[in-house]
Amino acid sequence: MVIVGVGLIGGSIGLALRARGLADRVVGLGRDAKRLNEARDLGAIDVGETCPETAFQGAEIAVICTPVSRVAHDARTAMMSGPGSILITDAGSTKRAIVEELERDERTRSAFVGAHPIAGAERSGARYARADLFQGRTCVLTPTARTAPDRLERARSFWASIGSRIVELSPTAHDDALAYTSHLPHAVAAALAAAVPTEYLDFAAGAYRDCTRVAAASPELWSAIFMANRGPLLDALAAYRDQIAQLTDSLLHRDEAAIRGWWEKARIHRERFPAARIVPPDDAP
Amino acid sequence: MVIVGVGLIGGSIGLALRARGLADRVVGLGRDAKRLNEARDLGAIDVGETCPETAFQGAEIAVICTPVSRVAHDARTAMMSGPGSILITDAGSTKRAIVEELERDERTRSAFVGAHPIAGAERSGARYARADLFQGRTCVLTPTARTAPDRLERARSFWASIGSRIVELSPTAHDDALAYTSHLPHAVAAALAAAVPTEYLDFAAGAYRDCTRVAAASPELWSAIFMANRGPLLDALAAYRDQIAQLTDSLLHRDEAAIRGWWEKARIHRERFPAARIVPPDDAP
Repeated sequence: MVIVGVGLIGGSIGLALRARGLADRVVGLGRDAKRLNEARDLGAIDVGETCPETAFQGAEIAVICTPVSRVAHDARTAMMSGPGSILITDAGSTKRAIVEELERDERTRSAFVGAHPIAGAERSGARYARADLFQGRTCVLTPTARTAPDRLERARSFWASIGSRIVELSPTAHDDALAYTSHLPHAVAAALAAAVPTEYLDFAAGAYRDCTRVAAASPELWSAIFMANRGPLLDALAAYRDQIAQLTDSLLHRDEAAIRGWWEKARIHRERFPAARIVPPDDAP
Repeated sequence: MVIVGVGLIGGSIGLALRARGLADRVVGLGRDAKRLNEARDLGAIDVGETCPETAFQGAEIAVICTPVSRVAHDARTAMMSGPGSILITDAGSTKRAIVEELERDERTRSAFVGAHPIAGAERSGARYARADLFQGRTCVLTPTARTAPDRLERARSFWASIGSRIVELSPTAHDDALAYTSHLPHAVAAALAAAVPTEYLDFAAGAYRDCTRVAAASPELWSAIFMANRGPLLDALAAYRDQIAQLTDSLLHRDEAAIRGWWEKARIHRERFPAARIVPPDDAP
């Protein structure tokens, strides 16, 4: 079992595997020995490696948890360095570009099953990892007609073993849905944080705090996710701008009834959010 | 002590006063006897009244906790029904329109001190009231050159007695700041909730949950607040649309570095949010 990239997600996978006794040995592969040592000290991995050839030797599963712009490259490395029977899966927040790239090569196509565990936080790094991060949370697998059935079955077992609820979508359907449910909320949060003058922050409270929480996330990770899901995110932004334009027009026309109706629609949508699958509130500021 | 409108805010004021033994008798004035009984059963008031003349008889303080569109009217009623020495204060989320209206009349001008305790929730009703809702939270008082000094002093004492940290601003400065720190986040949240197709909600997690939380608030209350602070909110919406436009342009031009810089600015702003005055996370879905 090799985890490539031992940050919040990779570290949480390691903690979950070790807490449940699901792997004889969890290897963390990374470029930064210090971060690997930290992950080992935290109990997220048994051993840290910086050399792919060593790390992937005899590996049954490689889980790629690097930023979306590096997933395809790291998956190819796993393919080249690991045994022919290896299952390669990932945790990237976008799927179409990654799956398309890996399906172009027959070898990676037969070993790879795209995955996106919908879990995370605005913080980065193994020190925020949690063994229960995936417990009861949705993990989207994105097999295609070209995915090897045995690898798909093994990917389902792997993600279910750490507590995920498995859902399967095409890579495109995944990216369209996540553009709205994750990438757009992140864009909205960052835009709000940027728009509010800091001299006013003494007068901010719960609405500001919650609406901007994820603006504290990594600019590197999120600019890469936005680029990888550019088309669907542009569509979602257009739909969102239309909502802001509706409110603006109603204000310009002093149409209070229209504002009330607009808000009522928002409230009805929000009530459909499935409370049963809600993550516990974060204790972050 | 009369609380006009015993919902989340009025009920919390009552609970705080009674928990601290600050009032001999807390009277709740409202139009709905059932809601008044509920507030009494919850311990938020000692007695409920539906008749203003009875309620305000001999009252030293009247706190108007009705929706912003009704505050000025209810303050005038308190003035006409109460003793000449009465202090009238309110809890409205906007201040300029209310203060201007009440300063037009010499009698209400001399009795009124505008206030906005920056605390609340997306839920309405006395059953969500909490005695500690104002503890350590900012309460903005909005005196003007025409405010009676003795009433201002009494208003400071009153709001401080239930735990608020007092800040004083002009009504206009208050409305400009709150347009950004409260009204804009509410608009952003409702727009996001309206924009995300409900069939995608299975794939929503923490970012969606937190960004849309306040969209569950009352359409009646919030359309009235938006109308009462129309000009400053339109300015804030323009600044916000500019941020969304910057992101959209960067995506259209495939300019990842620009997106990273844009997000970095958002993150720096967010880090200035004074964590020490942060409200505890809500356990709401």
